[in-house]
Amino acid sequence: MTRVQTIEAPALAPLLQLDRTSNLSLQDQIRRGFFKAIGSGVLPAGIRLPSSRKLAERLGVSRNTALIAYQTLIADGHLVSRERSGVFVATDMQRYRDSSMQVIGPRSGPVLSTASARLRESASARASYRFPSDWQAYRYPFLEGRYDRSLFPISEWREASRLALAAQEVETWSVDTGEADDDALIDEIRTKLLPRRGIIARPDELLITVGEQQALHLVTRLFASEGTVAGVEEPGLPEMHALFEGRKARVAYLPVDDEGLIVDDRLKECDIVHVTPSRQRPTAVTLSRARRAALLEMAAQNDLIIVEDDFECELNYLVDPLPSLRAMEGGGRVIYVASLSKVLEPGVGLGFMVAPPEVITAARRLRSLTTGRPSPNNQRAAAFFLSLGHYDAMLRRFNKVFEERLITLRDALNHYRPLSIVVAPVRGGTTYWVRGEAGLQTDKLMADAQARGVLIEPVDQYFAPGNAPTNMFRLGVTSVPSDRIRDGIAALSDAMHAVSKDASHPTTQQAILSGDEISKMLSGVTLHYKTVYGEPCTIKLEPSGQMVGRAGSAGEDKDTGRWWVEGDKWYRQWQRWAFTEILGFGISVDGQHLSWLDDAGRVMDSAVISAPSA
Amino acid sequence: MTRVQTIEAPALAPLLQLDRTSNLSLQDQIRRGFFKAIGSGVLPAGIRLPSSRKLAERLGVSRNTALIAYQTLIADGHLVSRERSGVFVATDMQRYRDSSMQVIGPRSGPVLSTASARLRESASARASYRFPSDWQAYRYPFLEGRYDRSLFPISEWREASRLALAAQEVETWSVDTGEADDDALIDEIRTKLLPRRGIIARPDELLITVGEQQALHLVTRLFASEGTVAGVEEPGLPEMHALFEGRKARVAYLPVDDEGLIVDDRLKECDIVHVTPSRQRPTAVTLSRARRAALLEMAAQNDLIIVEDDFECELNYLVDPLPSLRAMEGGGRVIYVASLSKVLEPGVGLGFMVAPPEVITAARRLRSLTTGRPSPNNQRAAAFFLSLGHYDAMLRRFNKVFEERLITLRDALNHYRPLSIVVAPVRGGTTYWVRGEAGLQTDKLMADAQARGVLIEPVDQYFAPGNAPTNMFRLGVTSVPSDRIRDGIAALSDAMHAVSKDASHPTTQQAILSGDEISKMLSGVTLHYKTVYGEPCTIKLEPSGQMVGRAGSAGEDKDTGRWWVEGDKWYRQWQRWAFTEILGFGISVDGQHLSWLDDAGRVMDSAVISAPSA
Repeated sequence: MTRVQTIEAPALAPLLQLDRTSNLSLQDQIRRGFFKAIGSGVLPAGIRLPSSRKLAERLGVSRNTALIAYQTLIADGHLVSRERSGVFVATDMQRYRDSSMQVIGPRSGPVLSTASARLRESASARASYRFPSDWQAYRYPFLEGRYDRSLFPISEWREASRLALAAQEVETWSVDTGEADDDALIDEIRTKLLPRRGIIARPDELLITVGEQQALHLVTRLFASEGTVAGVEEPGLPEMHALFEGRKARVAYLPVDDEGLIVDDRLKECDIVHVTPSRQRPTAVTLSRARRAALLEMAAQNDLIIVEDDFECELNYLVDPLPSLRAMEGGGRVIYVASLSKVLEPGVGLGFMVAPPEVITAARRLRSLTTGRPSPNNQRAAAFFLSLGHYDAMLRRFNKVFEERLITLRDALNHYRPLSIVVAPVRGGTTYWVRGEAGLQTDKLMADAQARGVLIEPVDQYFAPGNAPTNMFRLGVTSVPSDRIRDGIAALSDAMHAVSKDASHPTTQQAILSGDEISKMLSGVTLHYKTVYGEPCTIKLEPSGQMVGRAGSAGEDKDTGRWWVEGDKWYRQWQRWAFTEILGFGISVDGQHLSWLDDAGRVMDSAVISAPSA
Repeated sequence: MTRVQTIEAPALAPLLQLDRTSNLSLQDQIRRGFFKAIGSGVLPAGIRLPSSRKLAERLGVSRNTALIAYQTLIADGHLVSRERSGVFVATDMQRYRDSSMQVIGPRSGPVLSTASARLRESASARASYRFPSDWQAYRYPFLEGRYDRSLFPISEWREASRLALAAQEVETWSVDTGEADDDALIDEIRTKLLPRRGIIARPDELLITVGEQQALHLVTRLFASEGTVAGVEEPGLPEMHALFEGRKARVAYLPVDDEGLIVDDRLKECDIVHVTPSRQRPTAVTLSRARRAALLEMAAQNDLIIVEDDFECELNYLVDPLPSLRAMEGGGRVIYVASLSKVLEPGVGLGFMVAPPEVITAARRLRSLTTGRPSPNNQRAAAFFLSLGHYDAMLRRFNKVFEERLITLRDALNHYRPLSIVVAPVRGGTTYWVRGEAGLQTDKLMADAQARGVLIEPVDQYFAPGNAPTNMFRLGVTSVPSDRIRDGIAALSDAMHAVSKDASHPTTQQAILSGDEISKMLSGVTLHYKTVYGEPCTIKLEPSGQMVGRAGSAGEDKDTGRWWVEGDKWYRQWQRWAFTEILGFGISVDGQHLSWLDDAGRVMDSAVISAPSA
């Protein structure tokens, strides 16, 4: 038996505000108060109410008024009276109540629509992709920037938090000392994190922010206003468009290629530019060293402020990281913005910015006006997290985990290459930017894939209005464990086949070779093609049935396998590549050009045949 | 002996970014890098550096280049070389380095001044009072809104935080589920806190914010833009002026009296108005019930949006709280904004707003763009804090503590009444708004008081530019324990005497009575005057030497004591009032008007004599 919950008259009274000048009778006002409190769930089903006598006393109304209000509510089924135990909120009304809220809630009032109509600013009128909030319920959520549960360093964060809860620590961070950030955290960042990026900063050149997003907000407030020309990458972060537009700045879209932001005359008309050199958001390419130098040169000559958004600088495992722009420039024109950790951010939310002291002073004042200090208790816990070495351990773990995941994704994309996917080369990170075949409708693909448990991210939001290609999407590995990636890409491949069924698919004009012809033509040749991620790849087919593959610019990725012919199909199996699976294709040849065909005669992939080696 | 700290070449390299296209030699670039890293403290005094060979290898320069760079730095005294142990950062250079940062740091570069000059917005150009960040080092910091260490509920917050650190809890709050707030916290606020203020809100009518300040920021962004007329209280919060001015709105100053905001035609030209009904900021008066009704009526007739800033609604101990405006209005035109707790805020920082769902949706989008969610781990901890009953226990404790402190302050002000202080009546809260005598220069008083360990808050910032009276200041008790308040006010009294020494002090024109004359004239009379906080007070002087005092509108505060004459002075001692101290005064009388005089003949206080009772 559960204990009966009771609300006493003093606690109930504030819910039944009476206005003695109203046209509504006191009785009706009491009834309306109950109706709202019950409908909104503030008075839960089954709670016991005070007696009408006590209620009347507390409200200062006649007992009769309270009694009639109760009786009417009982007659209407909102309350129930039980002999010798009292008056209760009815328990069988929940469904009715929920729907009735639409009528009785403030939503319907004429006053409300006034307030809504008076909204002067709606942040970003542009529709931006909202991932399903229950994304964790999907088996293959390829959503960049969402992190699966296994990644959060629970026990390490707990240790850091507990240290920050020691009495002498609480006495430090719980007391208002103005707008200063946590000294210990500032020191950890400037002596441990920043030097790795080549940045030397004094304490007064650092500001802690509520996640990286607040730093971006403060910078746009400080450096953009009406008439400012603000350069943003395209594709690029929709939040930057929104922030600059919120300042009435004119947004100039600057295209990105495989080396990152293209540095050309378009930058000359800009006053400020937002760049993501470490890992371009969203394409994940890295700004090349030459482009970095050119950008800084351009900035110096044209008096340009650079907002360096050092996204995922921590996740460089494919190659050595390049120095940050701020380190190259020496500090002054580049405002450096970063997140303490993208993995911690959804739960803890700390970022920081590095800028000249006067800029930090102005940013601190603005931070104070718009939010106040980022949670001082979390700042202290983060300082412990860093000083205990947990941060470094976490990065090492992530580098391992994400490298494995990204390579698995790359291999899977390569394996399901019949999808004709092309992606930009990346130097690490956690995401691939994917271009489907020309006729692909990403919105249709998304819907079909979602039904198969696969979430992919559309890319419209990253382009200027009207500029977005319909056949692109993004795949991230932050939220999909390694052992699910291949199955997820297989399911995505099925989805692509399903949505492209109607679309025309190239079929070969050439005759399909017989088994004998295949054996004769391919024995001893070398096939040249490019991997799905743009790297050259060669496959040497030995007459013995052995097969040697080399991929990468320097052929650094190598595998061996075997090939054979059965009926009129060519079969292959790698020792490591392509999941060691046996796959069979039809073959057609046009001069030096070879096509692999599926059973329906559709071209799955193609290569160039070079002469058999001597 | 302390362990020698060492930095290896790979960690050092990012600090020594080399630009092979620079005019500066590689040697000089290395030297400059060291100079900056040492000067900023990133390379601490005494740290051991890698050998010149290892450094050269890592940087890809000739060994000679590294060697000469080291040698020059050693010759200049920045590094020291120790036989058979290596090269170290010098330890005796700290003072020099600190000052040299002014020269070598980015502060001096021409590039920096460009970035600073490019700042488009400086939050609030108006100078606003900044309390000393070491205010805790002062014995009597009468600073409203700072909280002394004894107030933070350390063990209760620790318990709530630890519960929020349980694995299954971390898995909930550490995962990105979009911009939703913590369900549990939303529910605690809407079913426990809001009903006490008479407010019924659905979950979609609530948004959690980074302290109350973020809620105010979001509201001004949403409802004010160029051309908006925004009403603010005067005196009122300087942050509101700054936020509205940041939106290019026109600020209309609306005066406040003892009943709070004056509701008159000035409101008719406003589009939005910010009010602090529970406890006016900064004067601490409460908006009367009649004014509340008038304000809502005015708002409905003139299509006015009301921002109800329910400051310190939790601290009502002198009288019953009045219902919130949002409760009186039924929800729609009033946006309700509050802090979860002003005491938790400096360390944890959570506030919330209540508004129609469409407004909450827009505010949530804007919150996402400008900061992201308020720390989800703190939201969860706060939910536990509330559900465990710690919040209620804390409020009960605060009500007791602050009531005692405020009454002690009131008594002390009353006792040191010779200061001629007049304050507005308050119904609770934690502060007194104080007006000194006409000639008082608060800035001089502040400086003198600070030297005596007393901090008081000036009030310029609360008025429109040029409107501030020079003789007002504010005294708060949130940061001064009860047992220090009286001594603090005594010290303040000394400071006031000191700064007003030169100012003319009224002296009586009347003859000073002799001891006999005093006995004859005062025996059996009743003296009427007003307490320092504006309440009527009577003292009946019995011929027996007994004395009965009654203060308050209904004479609810009563004390007895005795009076007597010694020499030519009148003495009194209360049983409870005035700290039970014996005080003696000279007396002069002009008709019915009595003056108490100090030894120098200055008027300390005065009263009206009524005829001896029959």
